Amino acid sequence: MRKSFILLFLVLLTTRVNAQKLERVEPMFWWVGMYNPKLQLLVHGTEIAALEAEINYPGVKLAEIHKVENPNYLFLDLEISAEAKAGKFPIVFNKNGKKKLQYVYELKNKEQSSSRIQGVTSKDLIYLLMPDRFANGDKSNDVIKGMRETKLNRDSMYYRHGGDLQGLIGKLDYLKDLGITTIWMTPEIENDMPLASYHGYAATDHYKIDPRYGTLELYKTYVNKAHEKGLKVIKDVVHNHMGTGHWFYNDMPMKDWVNQWPTYTQTSYRDEPVMDPHASETDKKKMLDGWFVPSMPDFNQKNLYVQNYITQNHIWWIEYAGIDGLRLDTYPYNEPEYMRDWAKKLKAEFPTLSIFGETLVNSVAAQAFFTGGSTVRPGFDTELPGITDAVIKNAIYEALNGKSGWTDGIFRLYTTIAQDFLYKDADQNVVFLDNHDMSRFYSMVGEDLNKFKTGMSILLTMRGIPQIYYGTEILMKNFSNPDGLVRSDFPGGWEGDKTDKFTKNGRTVQENEAWNHISILANYRKGSIALQTGKLMQFVPEDGLYTYFRYTEVGKKDVMIVVNTEDKVKELDTSRFEQRLSKFTSATNVLTKEKLGSIKTISVPAKTTLVLELN
Amino acid sequence: MRKSFILLFLVLLTTRVNAQKLERVEPMFWWVGMYNPKLQLLVHGTEIAALEAEINYPGVKLAEIHKVENPNYLFLDLEISAEAKAGKFPIVFNKNGKKKLQYVYELKNKEQSSSRIQGVTSKDLIYLLMPDRFANGDKSNDVIKGMRETKLNRDSMYYRHGGDLQGLIGKLDYLKDLGITTIWMTPEIENDMPLASYHGYAATDHYKIDPRYGTLELYKTYVNKAHEKGLKVIKDVVHNHMGTGHWFYNDMPMKDWVNQWPTYTQTSYRDEPVMDPHASETDKKKMLDGWFVPSMPDFNQKNLYVQNYITQNHIWWIEYAGIDGLRLDTYPYNEPEYMRDWAKKLKAEFPTLSIFGETLVNSVAAQAFFTGGSTVRPGFDTELPGITDAVIKNAIYEALNGKSGWTDGIFRLYTTIAQDFLYKDADQNVVFLDNHDMSRFYSMVGEDLNKFKTGMSILLTMRGIPQIYYGTEILMKNFSNPDGLVRSDFPGGWEGDKTDKFTKNGRTVQENEAWNHISILANYRKGSIALQTGKLMQFVPEDGLYTYFRYTEVGKKDVMIVVNTEDKVKELDTSRFEQRLSKFTSATNVLTKEKLGSIKTISVPAKTTLVLELN
Repeated sequence: MRKSFILLFLVLLTTRVNAQKLERVEPMFWWVGMYNPKLQLLVHGTEIAALEAEINYPGVKLAEIHKVENPNYLFLDLEISAEAKAGKFPIVFNKNGKKKLQYVYELKNKEQSSSRIQGVTSKDLIYLLMPDRFANGDKSNDVIKGMRETKLNRDSMYYRHGGDLQGLIGKLDYLKDLGITTIWMTPEIENDMPLASYHGYAATDHYKIDPRYGTLELYKTYVNKAHEKGLKVIKDVVHNHMGTGHWFYNDMPMKDWVNQWPTYTQTSYRDEPVMDPHASETDKKKMLDGWFVPSMPDFNQKNLYVQNYITQNHIWWIEYAGIDGLRLDTYPYNEPEYMRDWAKKLKAEFPTLSIFGETLVNSVAAQAFFTGGSTVRPGFDTELPGITDAVIKNAIYEALNGKSGWTDGIFRLYTTIAQDFLYKDADQNVVFLDNHDMSRFYSMVGEDLNKFKTGMSILLTMRGIPQIYYGTEILMKNFSNPDGLVRSDFPGGWEGDKTDKFTKNGRTVQENEAWNHISILANYRKGSIALQTGKLMQFVPEDGLYTYFRYTEVGKKDVMIVVNTEDKVKELDTSRFEQRLSKFTSATNVLTKEKLGSIKTISVPAKTTLVLELN
Repeated sequence: MRKSFILLFLVLLTTRVNAQKLERVEPMFWWVGMYNPKLQLLVHGTEIAALEAEINYPGVKLAEIHKVENPNYLFLDLEISAEAKAGKFPIVFNKNGKKKLQYVYELKNKEQSSSRIQGVTSKDLIYLLMPDRFANGDKSNDVIKGMRETKLNRDSMYYRHGGDLQGLIGKLDYLKDLGITTIWMTPEIENDMPLASYHGYAATDHYKIDPRYGTLELYKTYVNKAHEKGLKVIKDVVHNHMGTGHWFYNDMPMKDWVNQWPTYTQTSYRDEPVMDPHASETDKKKMLDGWFVPSMPDFNQKNLYVQNYITQNHIWWIEYAGIDGLRLDTYPYNEPEYMRDWAKKLKAEFPTLSIFGETLVNSVAAQAFFTGGSTVRPGFDTELPGITDAVIKNAIYEALNGKSGWTDGIFRLYTTIAQDFLYKDADQNVVFLDNHDMSRFYSMVGEDLNKFKTGMSILLTMRGIPQIYYGTEILMKNFSNPDGLVRSDFPGGWEGDKTDKFTKNGRTVQENEAWNHISILANYRKGSIALQTGKLMQFVPEDGLYTYFRYTEVGKKDVMIVVNTEDKVKELDTSRFEQRLSKFTSATNVLTKEKLGSIKTISVPAKTTLVLELN
């Protein structure tokens, strides 16, 4: 009985070995001439670990082959020397010296073009959009057979609406006219999830554009077309988690590919334990290793294979498509040491690439904690150049909606900016008023157009990299509970839409007023050295007026901003601004083109922000 | 006509020169063996600058004589070598080689006693009082003939009430019983001002105890008696300003002895321009050089004579009386470079001295900006060890009075403490709930005794140096507008007072409950290494409960604090605190002495803070 069982087992084993398959090699291809000569290939296929791998190509060394817990994986460590030439070569998988399978790998030459990987700076204006909700340029990909979410339903916030890359490509001129210089799309890689897959933060394939948006080639076309029009592209990447529908989550290389808990454990969403010198290990672990939601398994970023996989994936996308910047999702939830090493590696490959992390935290100190080069974290440099400046956002809201007090109303904004000493370079902060996870700005200011204009004027003249959320320019509104409400379709993005708000005629008078306000400032900004890279000088608010300057050492075309959040017109005596005004005698209102022959006193209308070019 | 005028002038000049007088030499005496061999004497007297000064004493060199704008001053730079012996010697003032005046100067030996200059640390509990309002021990000094304020009127908040040093000396045992270890008195040097002179921050003589409080000798007696009883003494010093009644304000050495403005200019009271990288010079100057109020001329701390005068005055008081710590008034209003140099000089003379600055600013970042060794201010070290932690105060109020939210209610306290990473050593922060400039704690919590107890429990178990304000222990109340309301007399401090709340029998049941609460914790604290110098570990609040620990590496008698600000009893499962509880199995309630046989779950009554000693 026992002997026959063993025999049967051996027979079965032989059968299984014969069934080896090769399903993927990732990254699918690579380049010669990279900074880092090392490359770790993930090879996935049924029982692939039973085979030996072999590479014979000049300049490429197969340094090590890793077998891991799951026999369906091999990890191959390659070393690509500086002498290696672009070309194709087989990776051969042998059994007892006999070739069983092969994969033809390609090393490409890096593309050279000055429009690739330009970086995104305070010269830019970022437009954030959700590809499913912006414009539908290709109805043929609205529903993809075989994917888990099968319905298109524009009447539901949670279903696919059909927006895609082709739709966005068709609107590049619109964005350019508005004064946008950079597009940040929420993640466009495959999210083959059964519910709310439009959301984009639950990846199911790291090397594939979601077929409902288009193809890899179309993504590259999109980036190229944007670059041709002088627009830059930011890619939104997620280090922290994937979707439960991810192909490798359902056949994991090893148990600790994700953070495992005895029972499902959610992150506390509290960043404090990461920075708190008094924090417990328990709280820190829960923040970093707890899952974001049950449908998003949390990568174990201490696992070296995971580290290599994610890092190489990002490098691959940038080199493949020539992307200008990366936005890092849920930054504080990631392993700090890994994120630092990741940033170093990315910067080594792409010195001109811009990077900023999502840091929805509660104080300037907490934001600064996550920024690179900040002195608040001695002995540890995150190497993260930029962060999303939620604290300035909150301060602008307080300025617009609050009542002036020692640290309230406009003083909140003043006192928050005064804390910029905590940053190495606050000009790399991304300043914004809303995004896809937040109530829309226009709703948050009670649909008050004066407040809207003041907020936009501040946003577009403040230090940092300004970002607006799609539809803000046409006064799209709603509150984020549930958050689908702030992810409505842009009217006119779909064939047959009743109105087309991409066109002036499709917009109401008020919408055009908002649109023009942004467009005038955004286009002025493109030519203003003071607003793009000038220094900031702010003065203590007095008499309900908050005055700040953007200036250069040249002393030409400096910009003076005066915020009046109160209900009455104010006469501003400018003598206290002598340090900034001594070189100037007159001004032009950037928005109205009105000339001010004298700037000794300036009349500031109620609930208005003046943006003045000094002459 | 012209010639006779000149002759007349010469005659008058001669007459004037003959009228030289010597009114003061400050510091009046000094010591041998000081760290800094240099000493700058201020000599004041009518036309004293017409004379030459001469010193002949072994080891003492008159290095330089400075004549300044006002001929009634001489500044003498002395160098006292390490070989100089204690003794008296004349400073001779000559005219044409002929002695006109002299002052017998004394160099004393430094007093040696282990109870002198002990320093104030997180082991201590500070009791802040206003000497005019605490206890009247000597009726003979209630009104001093010849001083500008002539009335005693206990019915008015603004007049003198008669409290004095002798009164305080009589209450040292009371303070000791309460569990106090350190007394901080608002300034006791002469304030010969016509109005509200009890206030103390408008000095009129830097080397004199206000005669309504006592004498120089009595002050020294007070410090000695406090030391004998194991109490320490903090002196409250004001660098920034003086009173308009100051003797030297009315005959200034030079015009820029104080900060001069074309017209009266008040400080903005805004600390931001001092730290803001975007601040204007105008705003910074207004903050630093603007006057606090019209009756308090603002010292020009860039003036080297002013610097020497103030610095030596403080050194003089410490060496004279053996003071343990200094509290620096209005710290952010002072010239940063001067304050840094001042602190270095004080620490060089008195390595054991404690120093903390009043910093009523609006964020942890701003507080940290003013602390020594903080990394937030690269390239500049304030050398200031401690600050008054107003941000923690505000957070405790929010915890007690607010509604729990992401950063509200108890979370405000949690998230504020999490920012301690900004400090070099948050244990040197002075933690408090009110002081003489603020509404009283009991009123601020709506006279809710449960909130009162929770606030006191947090105060006495938190990191840092706790400070309470006189009368808090007997539930004194009132709001600070006008601020005299929070400066009432301590009942029983005056002969004939209807009640004597210094005694148990004089206090109501509720007052004794408050008194005992503080006394039990304060006296427990004296023997608790965990509370005095232990580390802090805090956990993310859950289910309305905020739990933190004070612990040592020894693992004995750690203290667990559980704050329940909600209206219902809670059962706390302690498994998540394993990192701190693994060594312990039971606990004792410090306040009730109740024993907890098990600490696996702990029942926390509504609106209660448990302070548990772990066993």
